[in-house]
Amino acid sequence: MTHPVVLCTDFGPASPYVGQMKLVLAGAAPDARIIDLAHDLPAQNVMAAAFVLAGARANVIQSGVICAVIDPGVGTDRRIVALEDDGGVMAVVPDNGLATIFPSPVAVHEVSNRALFRPEVSPVFHGRDVFAPVTAALANGAPLAEVGPAIDPSTLVPLPRPLRATPDEAEVVYADAFGNLITNLHRDDAPQDMLGLTIGGQQAQLVSYYGEAPPGALLCLIGSYDRLEVAVRNGSAAGALRLGQGARFNLVRATRPSDGQST
Amino acid sequence: MTHPVVLCTDFGPASPYVGQMKLVLAGAAPDARIIDLAHDLPAQNVMAAAFVLAGARANVIQSGVICAVIDPGVGTDRRIVALEDDGGVMAVVPDNGLATIFPSPVAVHEVSNRALFRPEVSPVFHGRDVFAPVTAALANGAPLAEVGPAIDPSTLVPLPRPLRATPDEAEVVYADAFGNLITNLHRDDAPQDMLGLTIGGQQAQLVSYYGEAPPGALLCLIGSYDRLEVAVRNGSAAGALRLGQGARFNLVRATRPSDGQST
Amino acid sequence: MTHPVVLCTDFGPASPYVGQMKLVLAGAAPDARIIDLAHDLPAQNVMAAAFVLAGARANVIQSGVICAVIDPGVGTDRRIVALEDDGGVMAVVPDNGLATIFPSPVAVHEVSNRALFRPEVSPVFHGRDVFAPVTAALANGAPLAEVGPAIDPSTLVPLPRPLRATPDEAEVVYADAFGNLITNLHRDDAPQDMLGLTIGGQQAQLVSYYGEAPPGALLCLIGSYDRLEVAVRNGSAAGALRLGQGARFNLVRATRPSDGQST
Repeated sequence: MTHPVVLCTDFGPASPYVGQMKLVLAGAAPDARIIDLAHDLPAQNVMAAAFVLAGARANVIQSGVICAVIDPGVGTDRRIVALEDDGGVMAVVPDNGLATIFPSPVAVHEVSNRALFRPEVSPVFHGRDVFAPVTAALANGAPLAEVGPAIDPSTLVPLPRPLRATPDEAEVVYADAFGNLITNLHRDDAPQDMLGLTIGGQQAQLVSYYGEAPPGALLCLIGSYDRLEVAVRNGSAAGALRLGQGARFNLVRATRPSDGQST
Repeated sequence: MTHPVVLCTDFGPASPYVGQMKLVLAGAAPDARIIDLAHDLPAQNVMAAAFVLAGARANVIQSGVICAVIDPGVGTDRRIVALEDDGGVMAVVPDNGLATIFPSPVAVHEVSNRALFRPEVSPVFHGRDVFAPVTAALANGAPLAEVGPAIDPSTLVPLPRPLRATPDEAEVVYADAFGNLITNLHRDDAPQDMLGLTIGGQQAQLVSYYGEAPPGALLCLIGSYDRLEVAVRNGSAAGALRLGQGARFNLVRATRPSDGQST
Repeated sequence: MTHPVVLCTDFGPASPYVGQMKLVLAGAAPDARIIDLAHDLPAQNVMAAAFVLAGARANVIQSGVICAVIDPGVGTDRRIVALEDDGGVMAVVPDNGLATIFPSPVAVHEVSNRALFRPEVSPVFHGRDVFAPVTAALANGAPLAEVGPAIDPSTLVPLPRPLRATPDEAEVVYADAFGNLITNLHRDDAPQDMLGLTIGGQQAQLVSYYGEAPPGALLCLIGSYDRLEVAVRNGSAAGALRLGQGARFNLVRATRPSDGQST
């Protein structure tokens, strides 16, 4: 049985690097459907990619082989790993933190079987020469162990920072094409009495959907990643605030988080 | 019989929002081909989307289910509708004017059958949670009536402005990736004695194809949407004129449109 | 037997022009897989397209029909040609130099059989009205001769400049989405004693992979096109140097290329 391939890179939309990966995949696994998750991810930003992958895995990927190439360490001795998670989804990713977003992997293997690689491996394009042919082999039904030896999941490189915020701050992880600023504050971590977010004197009121705020208003809401995001109705929050990844918002709450300590 | 799906959004090329919609579509309608019409449409611009959809419907879409998500009203009480037009093409669109570009719909239904939606519907991402699964159901052959009750086509929300210009002015609706400025003046509305277009002292001579003008020259011609478009040969009209959507050009004609009124 | 189609344009990622071509292809050759090689190529830049096509043909395209529309001469009397190269790969391209990148064509035909075109041909969008339907016919198995009469390959229009540099200079042909500056200096033409590249006092040291240089350092290496490329580790060379296509780097060598002429 052939598995679909879910492709995710920071190579740029419709770039020749994505195209070359697809040509290798289509050549080696002609029956596998290729679905593009995203190629517009910010360059070499592992946190943003982890965020997008984790959201997609939780919400819309139930099967297949994820091939995610956000790989600032290409050519160094960083490992490439292939894994199967507890939902039966497989993934081929660099060992730079991306492997840790998958729920309870049942098996993790180091990708080292050069027989699966393309005959010549460019030190700057493992996406084409390693990730794509290895993904094609798994899509064609090869057992995970064929890619290389099993490794202890506890040895996987962690993400540079946790994917979830502490519940008094929200950091922008990703700005989408509308200029919405998506933060790491998960809905489950947001306090019940939260009223909004604030940064540099600008306040974003918490609403349920964009249209609840007047046009042009700064707002925040639980977005489609189940995270707090800051938006401008019918506009761009990134543009209006001139902010992007790494910006930190403070929470505005109806009550102070701890009692009796105000002066 | 499975129908192909034609996908059109303003989510940005290769963005994770497009990716999530495709994953839902591929999961629910694994045999349906997905064809991307466009994802680079200007954000939340219903007129530009209507223009692109109308051109594609007239010229290159003969079958299948169009799923168009340009939806600034997401989360409000705006309706979503599914329709079948007189050429047998189906469409799932927000009721914001986009439904009106289809020729003589034979049936229009409100999308309200929650059994077709994803179990949890984000108030900010109906594309993934409503449009995609409903489109998948239609692609799989579900009858149109399954999405919800029939509605009177005369109750559809109209476009904010007509798709066609009056024949003495041409307004830019869309700027393409080359910087060509595509206007709402249809070839059938252009006067026979038209010589070109003018704006702010700049004149664009009417030609038949780009190469008829010298390199660098401002020109206008009947473009592939059957509309007047302003271009610079081997260059960008949007860049040269610093103009975009909403810019209005006047027509230059060999004769004055009405006689005897010149002073 | 149906052949896959490899699509390559300068129409912009996820643009409606690409979408219209795909809809024509899918309508006329419903069983042919469409693989996007690239759509983000610089507008009307035949050299950059030739470079990307030549690299992809050499490395990852072994079969199918390439349909490449980088066509600044659309509407003029430039020819369109269809060819089969000595590896059995077919291509439909404008006769503007792109046809010359294919290895030893075994047959070249002029595309002139209007029975294969769409009934109405827009003088500004041959991609949709000529290239796509002709490509679909070839993908469906039509013999090459059906597109029009054979022509002498020696009459093909050459590229404006050679694809390969002389071995003392490297000219930027293409800047990718990471800001890497890819030059026309092929690995086989680079001198053995090369130490790096230099421009305007800035020096880029030759390394084997990005991670060999410290973060932020300007470097050069043999990239995935087998050409010298200039990069900044974890950054953008195009941004740091404010350079792009046409920039010329000088080679830095351990020994002077010719002896006895130093003062």
